[in-house]
Parts: sequence; structure tokens; C-alpha cells
Amino acid sequence: MRVEIWSDLVCPWCYIGTARFERALAGFAHRDDVEVVHRSFELDPGRSHTEPVPAMLTAKYGARAAGMDDQVAELARGEGLAYRTDREVGGTLDAHRLLHLARERGVQHEVLRRMFEAHFGEARSLFTAEALVEVAVEAGLDADEVKRVLDSGEYLDAVRADQREASRLGANGVPFFVLDGRYGVSGAQPEELFAKALETAWADRPVTVADDVDACRADGCSA
Amino acid sequence: MRVEIWSDLVCPWCYIGTARFERALAGFAHRDDVEVVHRSFELDPGRSHTEPVPAMLTAKYGARAAGMDDQVAELARGEGLAYRTDREVGGTLDAHRLLHLARERGVQHEVLRRMFEAHFGEARSLFTAEALVEVAVEAGLDADEVKRVLDSGEYLDAVRADQREASRLGANGVPFFVLDGRYGVSGAQPEELFAKALETAWADRPVTVADDVDACRADGCSA
Repeated sequence: MRVEIWSDLVCPWCYIGTARFERALAGFAHRDDVEVVHRSFELDPGRSHTEPVPAMLTAKYGARAAGMDDQVAELARGEGLAYRTDREVGGTLDAHRLLHLARERGVQHEVLRRMFEAHFGEARSLFTAEALVEVAVEAGLDADEVKRVLDSGEYLDAVRADQREASRLGANGVPFFVLDGRYGVSGAQPEELFAKALETAWADRPVTVADDVDACRADGCSA
Repeated sequence: MRVEIWSDLVCPWCYIGTARFERALAGFAHRDDVEVVHRSFELDPGRSHTEPVPAMLTAKYGARAAGMDDQVAELARGEGLAYRTDREVGGTLDAHRLLHLARERGVQHEVLRRMFEAHFGEARSLFTAEALVEVAVEAGLDADEVKRVLDSGEYLDAVRADQREASRLGANGVPFFVLDGRYGVSGAQPEELFAKALETAWADRPVTVADDVDACRADGCSA
């Protein structure tokens, strides 16, 4: 069974929500038959400038911004996640491109976790090539390959395709989870809800509705 | 809605079955909302040698081989598909790797159709780098990029992952279709069956089971 998760690297609820999902998955009986695919979602697609999160929040919410991120920080820490409110925010397109490379290399999960932890837990940047190479290498990617991908426009199409699919599915916020191509879960839901969603999606998995009439197998084709 | 199709390039029933599916899809009211993804399935994974199909069939089936491929040819032609029985058969790993590249470039469908037509309709090889570059370029891929991918081991993991997913789903033959992650159809079924499967899969599409509580949107995060 496949689970697709749309998230953005600078989205606190994605950091928290994916960690909750992973805990639910770790306790799921059929976890070894679950493939998790991370999909790209840029909350601020054209963004190229970097700024401190507190300044960004104040610009956006004015007086209401005070303490906003602290509340999220408290909640995150309560769930065992390191969280710093003195981090910066910037564009995530390059980070998303690297996540597509990471998927091909079989380390997508590791790279995403490392990016989330570096960004939220260590207030590190994900917004320059240097910073991204560092984080990606820590998670097992090859430095030269990461540089090559960053220098080229590689995986841009893949990022855009993920974004288009999110709109097609009606997701306008992240995190957004789709289990087995059918069950959608939106937001950083409680672990118990993810556990239940996994059970439900598993319960009616693909069935073959039509048996093979004309097909080829390793030992030959029907004729 | 996504439709995944596992096939091999040298499998006659894949050539015919995917064409039938495409006709059904062309007549499907929601065709613009259907994403087709082609998945790799190597019928003969270790194969490196190339030989004429008639010789291969005789080695496999003895006297029974006579006329076997002619019957398939007749059926294919009856459905408007060019089909030559004097083609060769060989390993398809490199062709499958190129189909993964083609997916990233947004021309997977075009490259698959071109490969099928070149192989079955024109008895062309898909088994050397030169032949593959030619066919891939005809379908819109860039020659230099194709050569680079062929020279490297790129997309090998993606081919293996497709193959593993096929076994996990219980598919031991191709073509194999999975509609919306749930409805499996095995073999070159009649167009009408594909049409019906599309309707059925569409009828109960993903629903969001849980609304967003804590999520981030373009205009900000809940707190």
C-alpha cells in the first residue's frame, strides 16, 4: 500500500504531522508493506528572499504574531521534537528538487527527516546551495550529485507535477496525506487518526477484478 | 485519478492491451483527470542476448510454436496495430530505464507508444544503445540526455521498485493495470472491460476523511 504525503519544508505542521504519521506507521501491523512517498508542496512558490521567522510572522499577523510560534514550539517539544523559533524562512524549491533525487536514491525519508530536523530543530538554513549540500550529505546523498542537481534545473518538472496533483486532489494546505490513492487526510491530525486511517485503507486493498485472459508471464505468452 | 500499467516492451499482449486501454480512456468522460503511469516489468530480467522471435518460440514450444505469433499478428492487425513476426527479442532493462526518464520529461506515453510501434510494427530493435537513442529521440527525448542515462545506471532502482511493487500486488503476468490504487485488471482485456473499470474506479474516488485542524496554507499556518 502506498501513502503519499504532501508537505513543505518550512511548514511547522508538516514537521509535526509527518512525525505523528510516522509514529502511527511504526505501530501499524503491515508497516513493511507500506511505501511512503513524499510529494512537493511549495507554500510560497515564487519566494527567493530569506528572512527571520519572527519578522515574517509580525509582517503577516501584526500584534497577533506575538507568541504564535512559541505555542507551536511548545507543542512540538511536547511530542519530542526539537523546535527553534529563531530560524529563518526562505524558498524551498531546491530542497524539494533534492527530495526527488533522494527518492530515486532510496533515501527520501532520511533526507526529509534530516531537512526538517536541521531546519526546525537546529535553525539551519535550507535556502542556499551550500546549506542544502551539507544537510543532504548528512542524510546519505552524494555531494557531487547533489551539486549537479542544484546547478541544473533537474526535478523541477517533478516538483511542479506534485503541486498540480495536490490541486487536482483539492488540497490547498499541508500536510496532506493520501492513503492507497483513496483516503485523504488533511492537516497534522492526532496519531490515533493516522493509525485508524491506515487500518481502514488497508482493509479494502486492491483486488483483481478481472483475471488474465491474454497475458505474458516469465514462462511465455498465452496465444 | 491515476492508472498504473505494468508492461514489458517485448510482450505482445502489452502492446495490444495498452492500445485497448487507451481507446477506452479516449472515450471516458473524465479522461482529462486521469493520469497514466507506466511501470516496468521485465519478463526475462537477466536476459542479455538477442534472437529472432520465431527461433525463440520454437525453442520454447517446439512444434506448437508454428503459427502462434501469426495468430497474435492477425488479431493485432484486426485492431489497427501494425505487427511483424520477423522481429527479434532481447533484454528490456535499458528501455525500461528510458521510460522512467521519459516520465520525468513528461513524454512517457509518447516514448512507450513509439517503442511498441517500432518494435512490433517495424521489427526494430530496442536492445542496443544506438537503437534506443533513435527511438527515444523520435518520441521527443533529447539524444544527449538519453545517452547519458544509458551510459549510467540511472533509473535502475526505479525499474526494480516497479518490479517489486508488481509482485507485492500479486501480478505475475503483464499487462497489469491498477486503477486508482485499487482496481486491478490483469491481461489484454476487451476495451469494454477497461471502460467499465474506469467508470467503477471513478465512481468512488478519494474523499477527505479528516478535515484540516492544524495545517499551513499559502496565506499562513493555523496556530
